[in-house]
Amino acid sequence: MVTVQKCSRVYLESYTSIMSFGLDKKKLEEFFNKEIEEADRMTIELDSDDIIDEAFDSDVCLLVVGDPLGATTHASLVFNARKAGVDVEIVHNASIISAVGCCGLQLYRFGEIVSIVFWEENWHPDSYYFKIAENKKRGLHTLCLLDIKTKEQSIKNMMKGRKEFLPPRYMTCSDAAKQLLEIVDQMSDENMEPVYTKSTEVVALARVGWDDQKIVFCSLEALCDLDMGPPLHSLIIPGELHPMELDFLKSFYHNVF
Amino acid sequence: MVTVQKCSRVYLESYTSIMSFGLDKKKLEEFFNKEIEEADRMTIELDSDDIIDEAFDSDVCLLVVGDPLGATTHASLVFNARKAGVDVEIVHNASIISAVGCCGLQLYRFGEIVSIVFWEENWHPDSYYFKIAENKKRGLHTLCLLDIKTKEQSIKNMMKGRKEFLPPRYMTCSDAAKQLLEIVDQMSDENMEPVYTKSTEVVALARVGWDDQKIVFCSLEALCDLDMGPPLHSLIIPGELHPMELDFLKSFYHNVF
Repeated sequence: MVTVQKCSRVYLESYTSIMSFGLDKKKLEEFFNKEIEEADRMTIELDSDDIIDEAFDSDVCLLVVGDPLGATTHASLVFNARKAGVDVEIVHNASIISAVGCCGLQLYRFGEIVSIVFWEENWHPDSYYFKIAENKKRGLHTLCLLDIKTKEQSIKNMMKGRKEFLPPRYMTCSDAAKQLLEIVDQMSDENMEPVYTKSTEVVALARVGWDDQKIVFCSLEALCDLDMGPPLHSLIIPGELHPMELDFLKSFYHNVF
Repeated sequence: MVTVQKCSRVYLESYTSIMSFGLDKKKLEEFFNKEIEEADRMTIELDSDDIIDEAFDSDVCLLVVGDPLGATTHASLVFNARKAGVDVEIVHNASIISAVGCCGLQLYRFGEIVSIVFWEENWHPDSYYFKIAENKKRGLHTLCLLDIKTKEQSIKNMMKGRKEFLPPRYMTCSDAAKQLLEIVDQMSDENMEPVYTKSTEVVALARVGWDDQKIVFCSLEALCDLDMGPPLHSLIIPGELHPMELDFLKSFYHNVF
């Protein structure tokens, strides 16, 4: 709080995550008694030199949801600022990467994190499947971060140079479950042994750390039809389960049929 | 803060981590305007039922350094409390698991976390070597958490049933580097190809998030003789480095020769 208040300019980064319900720029302005400017994708990725320039003469602060260095963009901003001779202070915060411990899975039993991205009409990336497979082979859990699309332009608007954006999209656990099963369906055609099936039990998490947090332990098939409510969602594909982990997960059992 | 203040009893867990310099029980008591009791290993592991019993009639709070569910002990306490019918609220916090991003390595490029434990006279566990090797094979970074020994009894005191404890021990980056190289030395005898050598460059981190945080990027050999200062220390064995990660790490270059 003291760090924010001593700054002459405060930005709120608004495209790598979202704030919990009821918390917005206005509430933060009241809390800090400071004016706050929203910094969207364009500001952070394209105009970051302007922020660094400002920081030469005065203290500038960028508020981020989650750990401030979780996204490559932020690490890059810190690096460029220091390279330009600007001192950077980092105030760490809770992150989904460790907060997922709330489902009872042990953090030291997680392997590589994967990102599941929205499929476009002619682009169905599935490289995360192979990372899940590698983790599974070693008995490790996989945390899947689900895609966020903000300030995306339609091809039409992009071509016309219009700065109009599509509504934000947040991938749900149900979207992710459907994609994961589609990948496996295609593999069965090729006679490969999939590392998960529709009956594999996974952990769906929504709004971790918020008042209305929801955690459900159910099969991938059941998850396809499960409404976990508003964003953000995350998904865990468990590896080998320790009896204590399984007991904990069972408390989130949800029989949707 | 509000959560802590509404509790009739506040414990401070004191054996899975330590608080930063200048912050102690007394400072926290002043901050919260509350009396705080220290909960050591015995209290958490052996007397946890007493804490759960207390929580039936009144709000009890356990303060933890780092994410509250990073340690198995804490997850187990939450599970047992809920099983006994006690509501548990979790307030997430920054954790070394995500805070390591401050060295410039990307969090989604980390593999399984390992713990490096103190070797005893006749017990030299080295299973973490194989986990490092698996991560390396996939180009992933390995975060090594270093051992903490608090409230350990000497065999003499244990046999005499004396509740006297050895001074706390915290593994340094230098200790860890020496153990890692000893494992590799023994392997060379067996004509195995080690996944790191004494010239492998690693990241040493001390007191992450504290005012006197120190990060050094140097070879394992150099690290053996490097004093990183007071605890807690952590170590990262990088996998494949993205050019941006390498540039960031180079800003912590330390030529000790």
